[in-house]
Amino acid sequence: MGFADILNYSGIAVFAATGALSASRKQMDIIGFLFLAVVTAVGGGTFRDLILGNLPVFWVVNPIYIMVCAGVAVLLFFTAHLLESRYVWLLWLDAIGLAAYCVIGAQKGLETSGSPTVAIVTGVLTAAFGGILRDLLTGEPSVLLRPEIYVTAALAGAGAYTALVQLDLSYALSAALGALVAFAIRGGALKFGWRLTGYRQRPGRHPDDIPSMRR
Amino acid sequence: MGFADILNYSGIAVFAATGALSASRKQMDIIGFLFLAVVTAVGGGTFRDLILGNLPVFWVVNPIYIMVCAGVAVLLFFTAHLLESRYVWLLWLDAIGLAAYCVIGAQKGLETSGSPTVAIVTGVLTAAFGGILRDLLTGEPSVLLRPEIYVTAALAGAGAYTALVQLDLSYALSAALGALVAFAIRGGALKFGWRLTGYRQRPGRHPDDIPSMRR
Amino acid sequence: MGFADILNYSGIAVFAATGALSASRKQMDIIGFLFLAVVTAVGGGTFRDLILGNLPVFWVVNPIYIMVCAGVAVLLFFTAHLLESRYVWLLWLDAIGLAAYCVIGAQKGLETSGSPTVAIVTGVLTAAFGGILRDLLTGEPSVLLRPEIYVTAALAGAGAYTALVQLDLSYALSAALGALVAFAIRGGALKFGWRLTGYRQRPGRHPDDIPSMRR
Repeated sequence: MGFADILNYSGIAVFAATGALSASRKQMDIIGFLFLAVVTAVGGGTFRDLILGNLPVFWVVNPIYIMVCAGVAVLLFFTAHLLESRYVWLLWLDAIGLAAYCVIGAQKGLETSGSPTVAIVTGVLTAAFGGILRDLLTGEPSVLLRPEIYVTAALAGAGAYTALVQLDLSYALSAALGALVAFAIRGGALKFGWRLTGYRQRPGRHPDDIPSMRR
Repeated sequence: MGFADILNYSGIAVFAATGALSASRKQMDIIGFLFLAVVTAVGGGTFRDLILGNLPVFWVVNPIYIMVCAGVAVLLFFTAHLLESRYVWLLWLDAIGLAAYCVIGAQKGLETSGSPTVAIVTGVLTAAFGGILRDLLTGEPSVLLRPEIYVTAALAGAGAYTALVQLDLSYALSAALGALVAFAIRGGALKFGWRLTGYRQRPGRHPDDIPSMRR
Repeated sequence: MGFADILNYSGIAVFAATGALSASRKQMDIIGFLFLAVVTAVGGGTFRDLILGNLPVFWVVNPIYIMVCAGVAVLLFFTAHLLESRYVWLLWLDAIGLAAYCVIGAQKGLETSGSPTVAIVTGVLTAAFGGILRDLLTGEPSVLLRPEIYVTAALAGAGAYTALVQLDLSYALSAALGALVAFAIRGGALKFGWRLTGYRQRPGRHPDDIPSMRR
């Protein structure tokens, strides 16, 4: 089992856990736990494989990933109530998953296209997709819309990995450093509320409050 | 026309009807009926074909499926107001579609991968996808978050089908029994409010109400 | 650079702008602008390529599309506050994108399948997908649910293009006329509030208000 497998299984397991925690917050039954664990965990990688044309997708080729999700979901069904704050756990596990997936996504993108630009985009999309899907499905406030930086961490991790590979660093070292960068940034954002300052910010009005849209 | 085709066309027609009913509840125009009928009906199968790499997807290969959706949408545009409760119809037709699609999804998954695990997952995802998409697009309360069992019915149907095929039952009999199992469970849930009991349930707090997340 | 490329780059640029405007309305940081610009702009074409099996998708093959999105996002990050109403700009740029993408989607669908029905469906889905995704991700009121016609414009444009190609008009002329039809209809809807009249409309009740659903 190489470093890529370790990242893959870590990403799967922690994203599955965030899906299960989200199911727990919505008081779903055990099948809801399984469903959300699977969808959140394999969502990013499925999307990545579709875009790159690696079909059938990874978990159809190797169903052990599904078993890992199922195991995590069952475990959390019986233990989630023991956690003091499931949402805080969800955010931190999501940060680990983000770190693992931005590197894997970038690596597969680079492999398929040879383009660093594509690598960064597939890295970000792979990392963000599972969490966005989970939040859409359960009606949680989307991680994407939370004030602290989220996509930025994925972008930095995917960018660091891609740059290091271009500098001929070994795959494992580039991947480890890329994941570390992403986790440090997302973790700092969670712990200290880091955010990028906007340029000139003002909130959008609701369409009904825009005079020229009334008739 | 074999049993698989019957299941396929039934699934398409009833999911198209649920999409049209949802459009009617949102007072859309006839094009909105057509759009939601098509998206809801072909959503699950499109997703299944993508994951398994059966491209182009089924309705590009055989556009008659689109015609069926269009016919159903037009019919319901002129008749939906006659129904006493469109939402109750929507839920029951959705139950039929769920039953048909969990079997078809499992069958295609088994065919492509040979893995019962994959078959069950593609069965559940195919069955649940159209309804989830419809509810996301129209802002209906998601079937996924309704208290009674939903995904469970799809899982049971896909599981029953897959098990029976492994026991060397004929395809048609396994499919019929699988669909029956799924429909009986979802129908019972709708009629009697069946739900799986949780283990230790408590609702999640809104992020703003979690002390450690304030700063 | 042929007419197809012009349509493609126009669609990309204006949809990227709508994504960035949506990010601005939600007071996101610059990375949020980049993310939403990319997702909105390449969403429709990605979906089209997946369905038709043109893999890897267009922007993996030709990453310059991503650069265009990034440029638009950065530009709008520094200038969006200068616009009097970002939402009105968003709707009009979305109308241009809709017009470009319904034709491109129809053209690719026709090329792959040879079926006018498929061409119209891929035209509509390609045109509507980016905007729907953007609104789902940012929690804006969906363009799909706004009262004026939206999908209708895409349908008319895709239909006009497909019909003209069947009549052996040149590709460029059919495409220009198809895009014009779509833009004229969507623009008229925005300017004059055009809407198709429903047949017999009544709003749907919330599930909790339906007597037979209480227990």
